[in-house]
Amino acid sequence: MRILGIDPGSRITGVGIIDGERLVHAESLRLGSGPMPERLGEIYRRLTQLLAEFQPEVAAVETVFMSRNPQAAIKLGQARGAAICALVGYGLDVHEYAPRAIKQALVGRGAAAKEQVQHMTRAILKTRQPFGEDAADALAVALCHHHTSQTNARLPAGVVLR
Amino acid sequence: MRILGIDPGSRITGVGIIDGERLVHAESLRLGSGPMPERLGEIYRRLTQLLAEFQPEVAAVETVFMSRNPQAAIKLGQARGAAICALVGYGLDVHEYAPRAIKQALVGRGAAAKEQVQHMTRAILKTRQPFGEDAADALAVALCHHHTSQTNARLPAGVVLR
Repeated sequence: MRILGIDPGSRITGVGIIDGERLVHAESLRLGSGPMPERLGEIYRRLTQLLAEFQPEVAAVETVFMSRNPQAAIKLGQARGAAICALVGYGLDVHEYAPRAIKQALVGRGAAAKEQVQHMTRAILKTRQPFGEDAADALAVALCHHHTSQTNARLPAGVVLR
Repeated sequence: MRILGIDPGSRITGVGIIDGERLVHAESLRLGSGPMPERLGEIYRRLTQLLAEFQPEVAAVETVFMSRNPQAAIKLGQARGAAICALVGYGLDVHEYAPRAIKQALVGRGAAAKEQVQHMTRAILKTRQPFGEDAADALAVALCHHHTSQTNARLPAGVVLR
């Protein structure tokens, strides 16, 4: 199962693509500092290109961290909207995971530090490729979806863990 | 000049299209209460259809009202992101106007009540069509862009009012 993870942001949007625990592609899309509409269009265009190139089967995104101010939340929301739009437009189901669920899946503790998550992400994917923090976060949510699907597949039919 | 105004929201997104002061189309896109990714995809799809059908030349959107809580801001931001994405993807310039600028353009006072703006929107467009509040807000920002462009066109070359 090819999974695309995404970490949307209005300045940098991280993208990570995996086949199970194999790294396929990791990239931090730099969106510049131009007008917001142009940056949103850029998120959509570049994601659409990556979707066509790598043809993932499902997508995963972290739910939003809520303790931001409204202005930051609007910007982040817009970037998420543009990204999710590209994914849904391509026909992908988009699964959302809370930060705690991602930490739990990768490190085994919901309260793990960000650095531990990034360390485990690289360890699981057996890579030293220098792909930046945003791409690493995108890979982490993709791996979280992979582990969650694996766990659900082992459960009796009809039982789904969230 | 055909102008598309938009009032993005995650439950209802208002769309208004005008040729100068003539009403072309007004619609409130009801997005249901399903998962957010589906609603964002729906904003993108239905806007893309309207763009193909009515072929506007420019777009206008109200800047975001900032005194919301972060959770509401994220939702609104996502809807804006999906909408702006569709407009930019179609090749339109997207102009943003502050609520005060819209009130000033339509009623002549930046502190006008919402009802006065909606009343003037209908009066200028000479319509009694029952198109709902969200579509009316979308028409108001479209009219604001029309009036601003008209004013700018009357100024000496190189001078642009914002």
